[in-house]
Amino acid sequence: MHLIVDGFVSRRQILEDEESIYKFLDEYPGQIGMTKISPPQVFRYVGTKKEDWGVSGFVFIAESHLSIHTFVERSFVNVDIFSCKDFNADRVIQDLKSWLKFTAFRSQLIDRGWESLAREEPAEVESLPRSK
Amino acid sequence: MHLIVDGFVSRRQILEDEESIYKFLDEYPGQIGMTKISPPQVFRYVGTKKEDWGVSGFVFIAESHLSIHTFVERSFVNVDIFSCKDFNADRVIQDLKSWLKFTAFRSQLIDRGWESLAREEPAEVESLPRSK
Repeated sequence: MHLIVDGFVSRRQILEDEESIYKFLDEYPGQIGMTKISPPQVFRYVGTKKEDWGVSGFVFIAESHLSIHTFVERSFVNVDIFSCKDFNADRVIQDLKSWLKFTAFRSQLIDRGWESLAREEPAEVESLPRSK
Repeated sequence: MHLIVDGFVSRRQILEDEESIYKFLDEYPGQIGMTKISPPQVFRYVGTKKEDWGVSGFVFIAESHLSIHTFVERSFVNVDIFSCKDFNADRVIQDLKSWLKFTAFRSQLIDRGWESLAREEPAEVESLPRSK
């Protein structure tokens, strides 16, 4: 399962706060039953245009990841919660809303597993998955 | 733009080859006009079940990322190509097909930008994006 959440936030100060973003990536996986397998990497990014700056963060969890990219001058954030295990996406959205105070957001839940691809009709894919 | 590609591959040896995956994450962003802002991180992962193992890799590009997670025993891979700039998704899919030799795959292209969210009708989002 891969939950994608993009939003405008009212707590803009979080978007420029590397410590808060590190703490989220460090602590949140454990709170939703995911196994973190590396320390988070978080840093401030400044683009070629001076309004393009923000904080990017990433943490590996078992065979997947969490990531955050913030756009401070836009009060905008991209969040990815990607896990090979199922998780409660509604809870994650509620937690992100509490943390970031979205003024507007969109979310999408995507099945990334092999099981559903293996079940698809051959016509929908290039050819049959090879048998194992 | 965020391109998601999941597939079964016939070149299974690539899925366990940390060097090939590092090389892809290191060199491919430049080939499609993306700006890499960190060296890739790539490592082998072994889960609690012995069939759950593979290679995970990640590289930051300007305010977004590329990632790969492989499942060697399933001959399966998850690839994310996420960029705040537009790129030629068809070309990327062709390049991934050449590299990994999919026997079956699915792809999805997702708009992650603030522009489209700012344009959405208030009814579709929690509330109006705050003006800047």
